[in-house]
Amino acid sequence: MTGTTAVIVGAGAGLSAALARKLAERGHDVVLAARDTDKLGKLASETGARTVAMDASDPAAMRSLFVNLQGPLGVAIYNPSARLRGPIIDLDPERVRRAIEVTAYGAFLMGQQAARLMLQNEGDKKGTILFTGASAGVKGFAQSAPFAMGKFAQRGLAQSMARELHPKGIHVAWINIDGGISNAVRAERTDDGSDKMLDPGAIAQAYIGLIDQHRSAWSDELVLRPWVETF
Amino acid sequence: MTGTTAVIVGAGAGLSAALARKLAERGHDVVLAARDTDKLGKLASETGARTVAMDASDPAAMRSLFVNLQGPLGVAIYNPSARLRGPIIDLDPERVRRAIEVTAYGAFLMGQQAARLMLQNEGDKKGTILFTGASAGVKGFAQSAPFAMGKFAQRGLAQSMARELHPKGIHVAWINIDGGISNAVRAERTDDGSDKMLDPGAIAQAYIGLIDQHRSAWSDELVLRPWVETF
Amino acid sequence: MTGTTAVIVGAGAGLSAALARKLAERGHDVVLAARDTDKLGKLASETGARTVAMDASDPAAMRSLFVNLQGPLGVAIYNPSARLRGPIIDLDPERVRRAIEVTAYGAFLMGQQAARLMLQNEGDKKGTILFTGASAGVKGFAQSAPFAMGKFAQRGLAQSMARELHPKGIHVAWINIDGGISNAVRAERTDDGSDKMLDPGAIAQAYIGLIDQHRSAWSDELVLRPWVETF
Amino acid sequence: MTGTTAVIVGAGAGLSAALARKLAERGHDVVLAARDTDKLGKLASETGARTVAMDASDPAAMRSLFVNLQGPLGVAIYNPSARLRGPIIDLDPERVRRAIEVTAYGAFLMGQQAARLMLQNEGDKKGTILFTGASAGVKGFAQSAPFAMGKFAQRGLAQSMARELHPKGIHVAWINIDGGISNAVRAERTDDGSDKMLDPGAIAQAYIGLIDQHRSAWSDELVLRPWVETF
Repeated sequence: MTGTTAVIVGAGAGLSAALARKLAERGHDVVLAARDTDKLGKLASETGARTVAMDASDPAAMRSLFVNLQGPLGVAIYNPSARLRGPIIDLDPERVRRAIEVTAYGAFLMGQQAARLMLQNEGDKKGTILFTGASAGVKGFAQSAPFAMGKFAQRGLAQSMARELHPKGIHVAWINIDGGISNAVRAERTDDGSDKMLDPGAIAQAYIGLIDQHRSAWSDELVLRPWVETF
Repeated sequence: MTGTTAVIVGAGAGLSAALARKLAERGHDVVLAARDTDKLGKLASETGARTVAMDASDPAAMRSLFVNLQGPLGVAIYNPSARLRGPIIDLDPERVRRAIEVTAYGAFLMGQQAARLMLQNEGDKKGTILFTGASAGVKGFAQSAPFAMGKFAQRGLAQSMARELHPKGIHVAWINIDGGISNAVRAERTDDGSDKMLDPGAIAQAYIGLIDQHRSAWSDELVLRPWVETF
Repeated sequence: MTGTTAVIVGAGAGLSAALARKLAERGHDVVLAARDTDKLGKLASETGARTVAMDASDPAAMRSLFVNLQGPLGVAIYNPSARLRGPIIDLDPERVRRAIEVTAYGAFLMGQQAARLMLQNEGDKKGTILFTGASAGVKGFAQSAPFAMGKFAQRGLAQSMARELHPKGIHVAWINIDGGISNAVRAERTDDGSDKMLDPGAIAQAYIGLIDQHRSAWSDELVLRPWVETF
Repeated sequence: MTGTTAVIVGAGAGLSAALARKLAERGHDVVLAARDTDKLGKLASETGARTVAMDASDPAAMRSLFVNLQGPLGVAIYNPSARLRGPIIDLDPERVRRAIEVTAYGAFLMGQQAARLMLQNEGDKKGTILFTGASAGVKGFAQSAPFAMGKFAQRGLAQSMARELHPKGIHVAWINIDGGISNAVRAERTDDGSDKMLDPGAIAQAYIGLIDQHRSAWSDELVLRPWVETF
């Protein structure tokens, strides 16, 4: 897949930056799509990535992003999600609708566009589509209905796409990021210096592992969780 | 709960009619809400039910439905779903968005309004909220991404609400109707006369069983499946 | 099914007593099998049940129990389980082996014998086989490997039997009793007098609900959980 | 972990050979334990592995295997399973008991011994314990109760151990090998020469990926499935 384009939707700091770096290192042309691309300048110059400002839940914007790609599409990754919390009776319906759109509907839009392009590729493995999920996609937590709805829906989408597209040579996987992701501000260090939160580079390594899987042994779901996380 | 109001959203033939009859028999004031109430006349007169024409995915309409109920709310059941099928690359994004709204967003709207009213009830068991699901909510089938997204999201909603509301005395359950529902047109009869599809009365009986559960032994999920159904 | 024999394996106080009473009320000939039948005298005379002393994990004893039944077998329920806890490195291998035998192997032995008899029955619904499980069968808790192994295995057995026997008219279900069962000693009462632990009668009512399910709408798994239980 | 001992229990052709080669390449001292070590001569000389003849379900033999290891233990992998099929009423109870022992009880014995040694290791990541599972561990198929019981139990064991041992620095994972494993005899080749069955090398690569995971991002379960496999 080296030399193909890799699109990351919902690019920001942390995980997206780690993914961009690893994909660029491997020779992918990286495209970073985000609502706000202002703060992506440093990452873009560092990785040679192109940035695209867009709303991931806008069908026309998503179509435009993929129609304008150059070269074959090898990888597409969806990161956006909206975590809206509160007692069920206090949630604002319009914000709930929006949360589902950002987390799940946008994932569908990206998955559809990515599949259209990848199906045109040659070879055994036509591409990899990855969705960044959370434990909220397997367990609906109290006072977190919108996040549960979005992540459950995203997981259902990934399963449906995997069942349809695996036999066509496109690898689809949903990754349950079960824990907080470490960054300079939030990281708690253990006595021995190790992280108790997910290291973005470690997550990115696991994504690359999925992209590299031989098609005789594909994973459609993967959970990543810090050693100290209860589950 | 006898004497309380029971609201069925997404009322039509089949399951909804069986539910309306059983709830009326038990002494509930039944309210049938549906997009099209024209064909509900016979059922309404038979069960003494009031009908309300509404779009279940419209927040204002849902609020209006519940604000205008008379007497305490004991039961709320959500039935609507949109089954949109086809290869992922051929699906119309606008119809996908709409399918998620009908199946999952409307379920949230009903759940929120029902919870608001039920929390005002007295007693050990303040009410029962039931969501009619499908196996598509636990397994995303190929070429069925919108239905999977809607039913997964609905199940995530139900889990989140159950975890939040059970300790407050409101019972929430998601029912996986795993198979086709029998009706005059579709029923296939076995040699001995029994149904190979789900009997609406049998489903309704199971819903009543949930409504009657003692709060020391609540089910938050239930699967119902014909004896001949593969799973 | 009224008039048929109902066998309860692993009969003692609490759940088994509640089950025996409800089954006897419905006109079943009840047989109570337990390692120690000494304390079953009162229950037996109250319900007209026959008692059989046996080790549920002994193939010959289980065969003998069923071969000697009189009249058609309608219901078979398996209750025994062994909860062995401790750090994985401290567990005694022999006790672990025994725990798996009591919880899972005995369940197989009963399921096999019950299926043999029920397949000879006439009619649409030839019988109901129920396994009393626990949340340990869906989630392996720390320091509880033997209980997890037994309950997981029991759930796998129930699923396999349901898939094989449902099309033959035998209903098989695994019930996740997710919480402590109330009794005179342990029950904690809430301010308003309601139980915070599972009421044996409420559980038994749910078992009867399964036994009464129309075969067009069978449940193969059921969870029962107190309203205040976290999950 | 390089330089540590890696034990493979249930070593034969196929997967075990691929694992042995990869582990030896990485500098592990490989120990191959199997009931019959006669056919392991070539693999042993190729990988410099030591072979041990043993019954994996014998507590004393398992203890002896681990007590006699030299150097720190870094990796332990459990492969044995017994697939016994047939109608539930025809299964031989003794063979069912034996199947559960081979698939699940032996897994416990290995897990216990491996944990004892690994807890004595220094460092952030004290070792990796992997169990080779199957889809029978998440879904009980008809006429396959003993395999379902064994693999379910094995999965429950792995979950319990992961919850207990992850916070202690030992990584435990259960791998669902969802499909047939390719070998010279069984492999079906597609038009383009790719495998439709799981390639042993591809599986081994995934195991190595688990062993290499940073402890901030551990997977406790992993599914591997050929692109053409239905699920």
